[in-house]
Amino acid sequence: MYLAADDNGIVRSVTAVAQRWGGNFFVENHVGWRSCIDRWKKEQGTVVHLTMYGLPLRSVISELRAKERILVIVGAEKVPGALYGLADYNVSVTTQPHSEIAGLAVFLDHLFCGEELDQEYADAPMKIIPSRAGKLREGR
Amino acid sequence: MYLAADDNGIVRSVTAVAQRWGGNFFVENHVGWRSCIDRWKKEQGTVVHLTMYGLPLRSVISELRAKERILVIVGAEKVPGALYGLADYNVSVTTQPHSEIAGLAVFLDHLFCGEELDQEYADAPMKIIPSRAGKLREGR
Repeated sequence: MYLAADDNGIVRSVTAVAQRWGGNFFVENHVGWRSCIDRWKKEQGTVVHLTMYGLPLRSVISELRAKERILVIVGAEKVPGALYGLADYNVSVTTQPHSEIAGLAVFLDHLFCGEELDQEYADAPMKIIPSRAGKLREGR
Repeated sequence: MYLAADDNGIVRSVTAVAQRWGGNFFVENHVGWRSCIDRWKKEQGTVVHLTMYGLPLRSVISELRAKERILVIVGAEKVPGALYGLADYNVSVTTQPHSEIAGLAVFLDHLFCGEELDQEYADAPMKIIPSRAGKLREGR
């Protein structure tokens, strides 16, 4: 995650979750959004901007699944207009107003065909054991 | 939406979005969570509680698609322990910590097999026209 803002609190909390629950998720703080996009495109990566004004998710997702590397841009505040032109794809997760984080989750779920839902992190200190009506976990 | 809290601000903003963008979404403020669940179950509805401790989404979703009416419970704060026993299904959208609203979105997306993504609201005053790199809309 490249954070186009300066917020060490986000870095700390995301890093703490990843350390406890596993995975190689990282956060880079205080990134310039334009140089980040430029670098990504220079390295042949694909840039996807999620916006309710874009093309419907289901009309582009199979094309996107074929890409090697995707940078997904989610706007927390109002997004600079230039972003629409810089992105390789502007993609909408419904054309109604919605939570940006929900839009990102649904986008990634479609990108990975739902397979990420059952992913396990073998080296995680903490792990949940699925159960019908309880709260079971291993580790600490 | 039955809001188990007292917050007229949420009611106002959700109602305003639904009026502008269409759909029959409603919010009921200040609902007692236990009586809401009791009533739902008395009327033969199914109660699903989203929690990272539950059964994996993909292991139960086809069973849930066969239900006529589903009440989905999402905890904003810490959820009362009794809820785990009252729910017909405790369902996890991944077993790692996640945004509740993202979990709800992914759950509904799987429930509706993604078909909700292309839903249009014919009577909406405001409508977006999907586009490759612009911001097009009709209405106001």
